[in-house]
Formats: sequence, C-alpha cells, structure tokens
Amino acid sequence: MNLFDVSMPIHVGMTVYKNKPEKLPRLEVTSDFATQHVHETRICMDAHCGTHIDAPLHMLPGGKASETLAPNQLMRHCRVLDLTGVSGGIQTDDLLLQAIQTGEFLLFKTRNSWDEKFNSDFVYLTEDGARYLANIGVSGVGIDALGIERSQPDHPTHKILFQQGAYIIEGLRLRDVPPGTYQMIALPLALHGSDAAPARVVLTSMSNAN
Amino acid sequence: MNLFDVSMPIHVGMTVYKNKPEKLPRLEVTSDFATQHVHETRICMDAHCGTHIDAPLHMLPGGKASETLAPNQLMRHCRVLDLTGVSGGIQTDDLLLQAIQTGEFLLFKTRNSWDEKFNSDFVYLTEDGARYLANIGVSGVGIDALGIERSQPDHPTHKILFQQGAYIIEGLRLRDVPPGTYQMIALPLALHGSDAAPARVVLTSMSNAN
Repeated sequence: MNLFDVSMPIHVGMTVYKNKPEKLPRLEVTSDFATQHVHETRICMDAHCGTHIDAPLHMLPGGKASETLAPNQLMRHCRVLDLTGVSGGIQTDDLLLQAIQTGEFLLFKTRNSWDEKFNSDFVYLTEDGARYLANIGVSGVGIDALGIERSQPDHPTHKILFQQGAYIIEGLRLRDVPPGTYQMIALPLALHGSDAAPARVVLTSMSNAN
Repeated sequence: MNLFDVSMPIHVGMTVYKNKPEKLPRLEVTSDFATQHVHETRICMDAHCGTHIDAPLHMLPGGKASETLAPNQLMRHCRVLDLTGVSGGIQTDDLLLQAIQTGEFLLFKTRNSWDEKFNSDFVYLTEDGARYLANIGVSGVGIDALGIERSQPDHPTHKILFQQGAYIIEGLRLRDVPPGTYQMIALPLALHGSDAAPARVVLTSMSNAN
C-alpha cells in the first residue's frame, strides 16, 4: 500500500496560526518513572491546531458541532489539485481548467506546502472561488494552510462552503503528494460539542491509475 | 460500505478510568459569537482518554513514544473475538480455541461493551494470556475497556505485549460489532513525545464473508 500521511505532527514547537503563543499545544507529564510505575501525559491543544476538520459551528451561530463530522463521508475518493502556480487567493479562473465535478472532494496543493514557518501571505481560497465550488456542489475541500481563507471580513469562504454542506479540512501537508486521485481517509477525533476536531488524514493510491 | 465506528465519544461527562475527575476532558470555549465572529475551542484531555493507542513509553522507561504509532500498521485486517463469556481475566484457556495465528490483530469483545459506567471489575487480559499471545506473535490487541489489564502489580500484560512489539488499543466500543474479520482503520493523532495518542477507530466489513 502506497500511503501518504498528510497530517501535521503535533508537538510543542509546531507552527500555529499567526504564531500566537496561546495556540501552541501543551503536553503535561502527569506521571513519570521518577516516582511512579507508569508514564502519562495530558494534552491541551486548540481544536484548530495542526491538521483538523472544521465544523459549521466555527463560523455559523447555531451551526452543527464536531460530532456531525461523519467518518463514512470522510473515507472516500479525493483529488489533489496542482495549484502551486497560484499566489495570493485561489480564484474561479484558477479552478476553471480543473473540470471539477459535483460531489468531488478537492485538496488544494499550493506553494504553502513548502513553508517551514507560518507565512502570513499563505495561499487561500477567495470568496469568488468558494462560490464557484459551492455552485458545482463539491463535497469538501482541504488546503495545505492552517486557514482556508485570510483577510476577508465576515469570513465568506467558510460560510459559503458550510452553507452548501461542504467539509473543510485545514492544515494538510501535501508537498510529497503528486497531484491526482486518491483514496482519502480523514478521521477526526470523536469530539462532541466542538467547532472543529483534530484529525489524522492519510491518502492511499487508487488501484486504477489516473 | 458497512462501517462500525468503535470509538468512544469524547465529552465532558464521559467515562474515565476509575472515575478520577482529573482525567475528565475539558473543553474551553476561547471565542464565541457574543463578542467575536468565530467560535473556537481548546481541548484538554489525557492521552489515555477515550479510545486510544498506547505507546511503549507508557510502561517501559526509554520506550518508544507516540510518534512511532504507524498508520500503515494500523490499517489492516483484524479479528473481533467473542469473549463475552469471560468474567475476570482473559486466560490462555479462553484463547486456545480461537486458532490465533502469528501476525493477527485481535480485538476482544467482552461483557465490558455493555457497561454504561466505569466498572472496577472490568474484564482484562491476564499476564498468562498476554504471554500466550506474545509467544504466537500477534501484531496487536484491542479491548473494550479503558485498560488492557487491572490489579496486576508491575503491569506485566502491558510490558509483555510491548516487549514483543504488539500494539495495544484501549477504550473500544464493540457492542454492536458481530465477531469476525474486518478491515480496521485505527488512526491516532499525530502526537509526538507522548505515551499514548487518542485515536479514531473504525471497522469495515471485508469483501469476503467469514
């Protein structure tokens, strides 16, 4: 099995959104071998830390929470799009040539995948691009940045996608993944009541070449 | 696709080991719509909360940490054993009739799966049973309790399994899963440096009946 782990490693020195220190994960050792027979750790982390799946509650008052992120809808085909030529925002024009179909789940591979640190100019999906994808009726989108949008008052990209029922995966690592079609397995923690859930996401090659 | 989600929901009122309040997960809302445009949550939880995969560091000084829990070894066939007739500890005698093979990954379905609250008499794997499985050379074991062992000084069950290189999954929910062979997908968070990682675990039916 050819497997790509497209998840960000979670550790205390990892990249977090806008480098805000309060968003860093914290691992507290609650028991170690100096005084006990077992080693145990408690984790504190933002629901939006590392690779994660947003729930509509993140942006929509009264929106659905993380328990509605359904594994059977997140284990499916997806397509990794080569958008490494885009700088700034992904527009309709950047998507037109991709022959996107209703129901597709798209992962955007951009120049973000080469960023070693948080880049405040990360490539994102514009309101215009989100509206184009919502009109087609995609099942979900994923991006190799910690946000699907930036610097847009009122967060139209998130809202347009959520209102259409699309999933949003943020914090993917796609540098080593050739564009093409894959089997995606994106499993969020079974967290209830949150606006997002940290997730492990892997891609495996399809049996038929693309 | 016939999919069984065998993960425990993670929420503030969930069952934790020995009902210790300090082991309860905590969800802190760090931003909501009363004052902000986004809803954000920070999670604090034990690495051994809910469904999780132990790393050798949990019991072995200098043992491997959670970053070594490898997705490609946790996406594989497994067999759900019917051990619902066992009370107390699972012994070699309970396993002899199961025709267990080298390399198998076994999930123990016991009467624990019907417990609504923490049961201090939960069914566990004895030292004797662990030694039997290690000698066969199983790849891993999973159980429908928050611990694979209990009331054994020095934790021999964990240590025997870890020393043999077997994975240990705890906190499964198997009540609705008929015994038999499945495709297991057990994806831990990509957590580095911890003695365990919370995981989402699903089972899908095999294309060939068993």
